[in-house]
Amino acid sequence: MSAYSDLAAHFGRIAAIQNAVGILQWDSEVVMPKGGAQTRAESMAVIRVVRHDMLCDPRVGEWLEKAEGDNTLGEWERANLREIRRIWTSETALPADLVAATSRAVSASELHWREARANNDYAALVPYLAEVLARKREVAAIKSARLGVPLYDALLNDYEPGGQSSRIDAIFDDYAAFLPGFLAEVMAHQAKRPKRPRPQGPFPIEQQRALALELMGVLGYDIDRGRLDISTHPFCGGAANDVRITTRYDLNDFTRALMGVLHETGHALYEQGRPQAYLNQPVGKARGMSIHESQSLLIEMQVCRSRDFIAFAAPLMREAFGGQGAPWEVDALVDLYSEVKPSLIRVDADEVTYPAHVIMRYRLEKAMIAGDLALKDLPGAWNDALKGLIGIAPPDDRLGCLQDIHWPAGLWGYFSTYSLGAMSAAQIFDAAVKADPTIQPGIARGDFAPLMRWLRANIHSQGSLHTVDELMTRATGRPLDASVFKAHLKRRYLEG
Amino acid sequence: MSAYSDLAAHFGRIAAIQNAVGILQWDSEVVMPKGGAQTRAESMAVIRVVRHDMLCDPRVGEWLEKAEGDNTLGEWERANLREIRRIWTSETALPADLVAATSRAVSASELHWREARANNDYAALVPYLAEVLARKREVAAIKSARLGVPLYDALLNDYEPGGQSSRIDAIFDDYAAFLPGFLAEVMAHQAKRPKRPRPQGPFPIEQQRALALELMGVLGYDIDRGRLDISTHPFCGGAANDVRITTRYDLNDFTRALMGVLHETGHALYEQGRPQAYLNQPVGKARGMSIHESQSLLIEMQVCRSRDFIAFAAPLMREAFGGQGAPWEVDALVDLYSEVKPSLIRVDADEVTYPAHVIMRYRLEKAMIAGDLALKDLPGAWNDALKGLIGIAPPDDRLGCLQDIHWPAGLWGYFSTYSLGAMSAAQIFDAAVKADPTIQPGIARGDFAPLMRWLRANIHSQGSLHTVDELMTRATGRPLDASVFKAHLKRRYLEG
Repeated sequence: MSAYSDLAAHFGRIAAIQNAVGILQWDSEVVMPKGGAQTRAESMAVIRVVRHDMLCDPRVGEWLEKAEGDNTLGEWERANLREIRRIWTSETALPADLVAATSRAVSASELHWREARANNDYAALVPYLAEVLARKREVAAIKSARLGVPLYDALLNDYEPGGQSSRIDAIFDDYAAFLPGFLAEVMAHQAKRPKRPRPQGPFPIEQQRALALELMGVLGYDIDRGRLDISTHPFCGGAANDVRITTRYDLNDFTRALMGVLHETGHALYEQGRPQAYLNQPVGKARGMSIHESQSLLIEMQVCRSRDFIAFAAPLMREAFGGQGAPWEVDALVDLYSEVKPSLIRVDADEVTYPAHVIMRYRLEKAMIAGDLALKDLPGAWNDALKGLIGIAPPDDRLGCLQDIHWPAGLWGYFSTYSLGAMSAAQIFDAAVKADPTIQPGIARGDFAPLMRWLRANIHSQGSLHTVDELMTRATGRPLDASVFKAHLKRRYLEG
Repeated sequence: MSAYSDLAAHFGRIAAIQNAVGILQWDSEVVMPKGGAQTRAESMAVIRVVRHDMLCDPRVGEWLEKAEGDNTLGEWERANLREIRRIWTSETALPADLVAATSRAVSASELHWREARANNDYAALVPYLAEVLARKREVAAIKSARLGVPLYDALLNDYEPGGQSSRIDAIFDDYAAFLPGFLAEVMAHQAKRPKRPRPQGPFPIEQQRALALELMGVLGYDIDRGRLDISTHPFCGGAANDVRITTRYDLNDFTRALMGVLHETGHALYEQGRPQAYLNQPVGKARGMSIHESQSLLIEMQVCRSRDFIAFAAPLMREAFGGQGAPWEVDALVDLYSEVKPSLIRVDADEVTYPAHVIMRYRLEKAMIAGDLALKDLPGAWNDALKGLIGIAPPDDRLGCLQDIHWPAGLWGYFSTYSLGAMSAAQIFDAAVKADPTIQPGIARGDFAPLMRWLRANIHSQGSLHTVDELMTRATGRPLDASVFKAHLKRRYLEG
């Protein structure tokens, strides 16, 4: 056995543990009876410690050193070593008691967040959130020193390997400057559209599910390697070759669950398309959260909200629900799926205003991590920022800074990836349709094979072989910027 | 921290791992897409090694020695140490390469068993089964030497701690001598019964499920700490306070799924009733497989196939399926649920002939472990033995020695617990109704609180505090024998 093969076997075992955790998480969200929560929490905690201990196994450092001097390794193996060193450096940086303290702070904070949101009582959350923030700042300081990157970037890198806040600042500042004027134009353009009726329910759940499964299959989702279920918070999860997505159905509105399923299908196609030969190695994993979100938003925003797709899908929708008349015409459905309206809740936001929610949170968390914004001042800063970007502010904290679980859950450094994903989706889709002129006509007639072939070759099968910038450059000719995204928005919302 | 508390914390972590395995097993049987099988097998294998390594942690031996000298410990703690030493002695006896070789032999054998059964080709299975048998004999020899018990008992003890084949021989010989004559009497008695019509389907699955859930609740099953789902092979599994049962529905016959659910509910009530204070310690676990099966068969055979129960449940059955007329009368349903008929397949057997299937397998596996019966002679021995006990023999091996997965799956020493469970159920139920005269009238009117109170106090809450013999003696006045079971059969099948 070479040092590399020892290392690969070790990380294969770690992946096996991680796959088990993925299934247990799915179970917690989808089928676990409430009485099982305490037992599950203990199982997850013990398994996470097992995983941490395996990552910090002293042999890993020795194997890495030896393997990195091995000249016989190929491109994938060398990239795998790069990924393993990155993970190992980050994981071993933290003392075990800080890991445990962070975990405890997060558990308490999540619990109090649920109550604080229900009671619209931000002050009640502050002491618990402060504890999480203190631990995350400690983590950031340690990782920043170890990795040699700025404080905020040390947290960002857990979700976006190699991500740099300096570049995100530039991209987001650009969009923030563009948004207010553009939004006004869109609203004016939209006001001139004729008002069209919406499809009226009820839409039985079984039919909604059947239509969702049909479209998932058409897009290329392999149901033999996944499932579609129901959960309160839709997600894509599970394990390697067992990629499960969830949704929630509204009996009176089929359109949201359907688009939600298509979004999660985008994530799932990426996971199902990861390279089988490296499925359980770090190099075979998805290339970070912004690229992951680019795949869900490419399917949802670039493909499935397009007129071409809706023209293809409208007859299937009519058939599924026995719909007829004006609400079911393509024009009406296109309008429905491209309505822009500034709103307070991020997860309900449209494609144009969604980045405002993200940019605001990104700027706020960066300030809090830097120590430039105190938790007590967060609600005011939140409201001012949202007003500046899209002209509205929440009447209370429940609709404001209490709406997301991310910060109480310890997810600091995560938010930016949502909008980096949206922008990457636009840039990648644009490159795809230019590279293969059969993609766009394929979508219009429900043939997604050309698109999927391109995505498989250029994104999915690449795993973590390249850095994000390299992947984007190989696929689209350059690293990410906001220009294609802005052009896409102009085309869809001003010319549509 | 005392040595005891270190040990208890360690075994709490092992239980957390075991709970995770229980959920992953449930997932494999109930919801996993077929494409996920390979990933799942790897996850299970890695987690089992983690569990084995935790059990064999050298600190366990040191903690045990210290804790066993600790005079301050109470009854439960001392019993916990006894259980931990038992498990640890057994687990550390085996060299890791024998564990791995057994696991590989079992995987291959299970695979070839499916094919051999489908093709009715026992000879094709023999080489793989021989490998399993060889490894199990090796395991038996090592454990026999370590534990100081006979060869066969060393395997039996994995499922029935403290179980002795000498006593099982006596109990089974007694029943085997009783059976042929008794069976002839029952068949003659049954032939005199008027023929009654059976309820005719279809019985929609949703109604079958609703009725099953209703009766589960009536019996005392806590649905907030469990689930009811569908799987090919019904079972009770899951984790602590997350006790899940499964069934399979037949659209044209509701009676089997219903009784199957009630059987699994018996297992689940035991699991849900384990002592909460020791839920994740060895002493808080169920007291072996015969007592576990006694709890499922007490509910199924002693309670739910009784005239009292059926008289209570018949109106619920009629209501569930809109049934009316002769097939739905209590007499007809009682006859249906107590039909005796010698048959070839164990899992389809009635209460009277079921032990014959078990006794035969028990005798055969004991002979094979001893080296007194060669695998090539198994089919002939099987057919002769069944004919001797219930007068019929299978026309082929598919209906004979290929029907069960137990031996290919490495479950040697397990079979006897099914019938020990049936006999224990009779003895326990008899003691319960004598101890509390409100139990029997309660069942007749659908009030299971008195029965459940007695079972909770005398069986469920006792976990593994006592040995099987002690538990039986405390609950019923003496260790297990077959007398009450035989009396029960005479009453039900000759006087009913």
